[in-house]
Amino acid sequence: MSKKTFLVITVLATIFANLLPVTAQRTRGRRMTRVDLLVVNGTLVTMDKGRRVIEDAGIAVSGGRIVAVGSSRDIVRMYEAPERVDATGKIIIPGLINGHTHIPMTLFRGLADDLDLQDWLTKYIFPAEAKNVSEEFVRAGTRLGLAEMIRGGTTTYCDMYYFEDAIADETAKAGVRGVLGETVIDFPVADNKTHAEAMAYTEKFVKKWKGHELITPAIAPHAPYTVSEEHLKAVRAFSDRTGSPIVTHISETKREVDDSVKAKGVSPIDYLSRIGFLNERVIAAHVVWPSAGEIGILKRAGVGVVHNPQSNMKLASGVSPVPKMLADGLRIGLGTDGAASNNDLSMWEEMDTAAKLHKLFSGDPKVISALEAFELATIRSAEALHMEKEIGSIEKGKRADLVIVERDSLNKIPAYNIYSDLVYATKASDVQTVIINGRVVMRDRRLLTLDEASIKVSARAFRDQVIKSLGGLEAQPK
Amino acid sequence: MSKKTFLVITVLATIFANLLPVTAQRTRGRRMTRVDLLVVNGTLVTMDKGRRVIEDAGIAVSGGRIVAVGSSRDIVRMYEAPERVDATGKIIIPGLINGHTHIPMTLFRGLADDLDLQDWLTKYIFPAEAKNVSEEFVRAGTRLGLAEMIRGGTTTYCDMYYFEDAIADETAKAGVRGVLGETVIDFPVADNKTHAEAMAYTEKFVKKWKGHELITPAIAPHAPYTVSEEHLKAVRAFSDRTGSPIVTHISETKREVDDSVKAKGVSPIDYLSRIGFLNERVIAAHVVWPSAGEIGILKRAGVGVVHNPQSNMKLASGVSPVPKMLADGLRIGLGTDGAASNNDLSMWEEMDTAAKLHKLFSGDPKVISALEAFELATIRSAEALHMEKEIGSIEKGKRADLVIVERDSLNKIPAYNIYSDLVYATKASDVQTVIINGRVVMRDRRLLTLDEASIKVSARAFRDQVIKSLGGLEAQPK
Repeated sequence: MSKKTFLVITVLATIFANLLPVTAQRTRGRRMTRVDLLVVNGTLVTMDKGRRVIEDAGIAVSGGRIVAVGSSRDIVRMYEAPERVDATGKIIIPGLINGHTHIPMTLFRGLADDLDLQDWLTKYIFPAEAKNVSEEFVRAGTRLGLAEMIRGGTTTYCDMYYFEDAIADETAKAGVRGVLGETVIDFPVADNKTHAEAMAYTEKFVKKWKGHELITPAIAPHAPYTVSEEHLKAVRAFSDRTGSPIVTHISETKREVDDSVKAKGVSPIDYLSRIGFLNERVIAAHVVWPSAGEIGILKRAGVGVVHNPQSNMKLASGVSPVPKMLADGLRIGLGTDGAASNNDLSMWEEMDTAAKLHKLFSGDPKVISALEAFELATIRSAEALHMEKEIGSIEKGKRADLVIVERDSLNKIPAYNIYSDLVYATKASDVQTVIINGRVVMRDRRLLTLDEASIKVSARAFRDQVIKSLGGLEAQPK
Repeated sequence: MSKKTFLVITVLATIFANLLPVTAQRTRGRRMTRVDLLVVNGTLVTMDKGRRVIEDAGIAVSGGRIVAVGSSRDIVRMYEAPERVDATGKIIIPGLINGHTHIPMTLFRGLADDLDLQDWLTKYIFPAEAKNVSEEFVRAGTRLGLAEMIRGGTTTYCDMYYFEDAIADETAKAGVRGVLGETVIDFPVADNKTHAEAMAYTEKFVKKWKGHELITPAIAPHAPYTVSEEHLKAVRAFSDRTGSPIVTHISETKREVDDSVKAKGVSPIDYLSRIGFLNERVIAAHVVWPSAGEIGILKRAGVGVVHNPQSNMKLASGVSPVPKMLADGLRIGLGTDGAASNNDLSMWEEMDTAAKLHKLFSGDPKVISALEAFELATIRSAEALHMEKEIGSIEKGKRADLVIVERDSLNKIPAYNIYSDLVYATKASDVQTVIINGRVVMRDRRLLTLDEASIKVSARAFRDQVIKSLGGLEAQPK
């Protein structure tokens, strides 16, 4: 080998070694692998295929991904890192995945409740949106929702709203993972006045964020009854061309189904199938009223379904046939829906409600076990978002989205079964530390990427603006 | 007047003045009334007849009772007290009233979930109770439940369990208000082996606690299907003689109704009416399956009904016709049931679930408004416990059971309507300070009457004992 060849090889090897996220080094006389972050000493609920639960577990994280999972002892013997999270006496779970929300609607939380869906929409939500939704409004609402979600252990969410580019910007800055869908709808809305404008916005939006570590840009046709067949086909073509997920609402109410049958001769899922809209990139929220045949259509098309039990209860929409969809092997996860119809973004309450609702509705207390409810909020929500290879469980190679949960709160004591504890007894307030893509975004209940005080100030300012824009609400204390 | 007469009058006047809970004094040149405690500067949700909400409100408390309610300015001008709670930027509500629980069952929280009712009872709960329930077990479980309830802003609860005298002792020591029912059931249980023993225990128990400021001792025949007609009549006679409330379960499941019709020819409420059991001291939990006629019976008898939506959902018992009972003017409140079938004691989640469940089940999102749900947990629960003259609202003359709630948590921001905020957005973790009978039992989230650390230690020791007594549970992390 010539000197030059040797030099080239040496240089290349050095570059290569530095490119590797994990580099082996000899430290303290023992071969240690240097990584970014270690999480140690917790009870690990992996949600891997074997649903393993590992006591005194450790996780090594590098380049935003999980590089090793094992006993804490092995992990600290094999890996070293500049940052360490000690989970002694706590539970480590995969970050929760909120499969459906409209994040800026946190600013409408409690604006109007206990109303008929039509009154709620036409007298409050639509006018309030028309008069208030701006890019700044969306940014403020997004920051509020992000803070609430992080506090509750949600690390990924799927959104549909306006100014989704601003939502993506705030979400990326806060270090949260999102599948973010820009709304396409057949009437003028805050950010786009025509279908052409919305498609142009989405084109630019998708191009800008595609490939981002945290953000998956998506297109979000509102629903089959608010977007024409022609426009739905254009959305599908866009998705085929760009690979973007399609976020939408399907079969939320009985009325939607009846109207569809009246107008088109078929119910919504059947209709979407016939026009060639459904594919393995569609994420369909609600799906409360599918027929057995339509469940088959969703299954064959590989559509992801997101169940929103609290919103469906509050708006009296109905009970989605979740046990049947689970039995049929659909991709199905869990979401909170927007804070205007829930009224929180807690996946803990959503899991608890999902389990209890389907027991009641089926008359069988065995239906939706605690494990199944926890699956719905983690690995199954990942499947619904078509992201199960990246998130939803704690396994080598997946994104390091990890949540540390207290087991010492009064409401959790004593605990006999870890899934029962997580689903029926744990609250958002029990979440202690949150890591997304290997970055600690909340440590010991302190938010590290968002300024809580300023979030509150701007949320209250927008509330006052909303009240004023509606000509005041009934006299009541704020 | 002789010198002696003058002396006697002076002494009597002095004694009288000192006996008065509120004494007028001249202080700082202005006439101030001296009381025990002032709560000031909060937004006050009174739940009085006019459902008044008072901004910048103050409350004067003396001798365990509310002596004045008004603007904070007026209160601090007219009253002075050695103790003051500043509720600036917070909400003051009447203490929540948990109308039905089995407090020591906190120690069985999560022991067995997702099971048929029969399996749940016969394979887990009954054996676990038979092998573990002792006076010490009951005391430990009660302390755990009391701590959880105080943390969640519950100031009064209605209980049914064994060793109720020990429960009363722990409850009084913790400074919590309770209607505590000693169980009467036709099979041998932990504290009493025969009906005669149970009646003797209850006789002694009621005599001991009757007239206590915090404790209302009660008799608790388990259910019409577990207590014979003769024994139910004896319970009624006992209640007539002692004035004690009667705490019981009625019509919890469809099966109970069907069995009653099969065995007795009538459904449970009809049966209890025929044997002369029902009166205006009865507190009936569940009432999931009453006929329209039976609702009339409950109304005419003045029975208090306690709705337990989360337990009824989790055990797939059914949906109680709460909107109908409200429309018919029944006394009806809200409870959590025991932690083994919920699995928490949070009245916040119970309110939220009650509102959502009945919207869904009736198909009408206007059913059970936020205000109605909040009534169910306060003034209406007081009515269900036949205690509406003493508790359930913040009014002059009532017991000073007051709860201070944060309005600054992310999950509550922004707020447009105070009842919506309380029912749909507030969590147990938002409770900051709790006052019962004029005594501060939690201040700034610090429990003042219970030792949280020792509660946890003993709860975990009993858990280990329970697992051992059942021959171990399925291998799973604790």
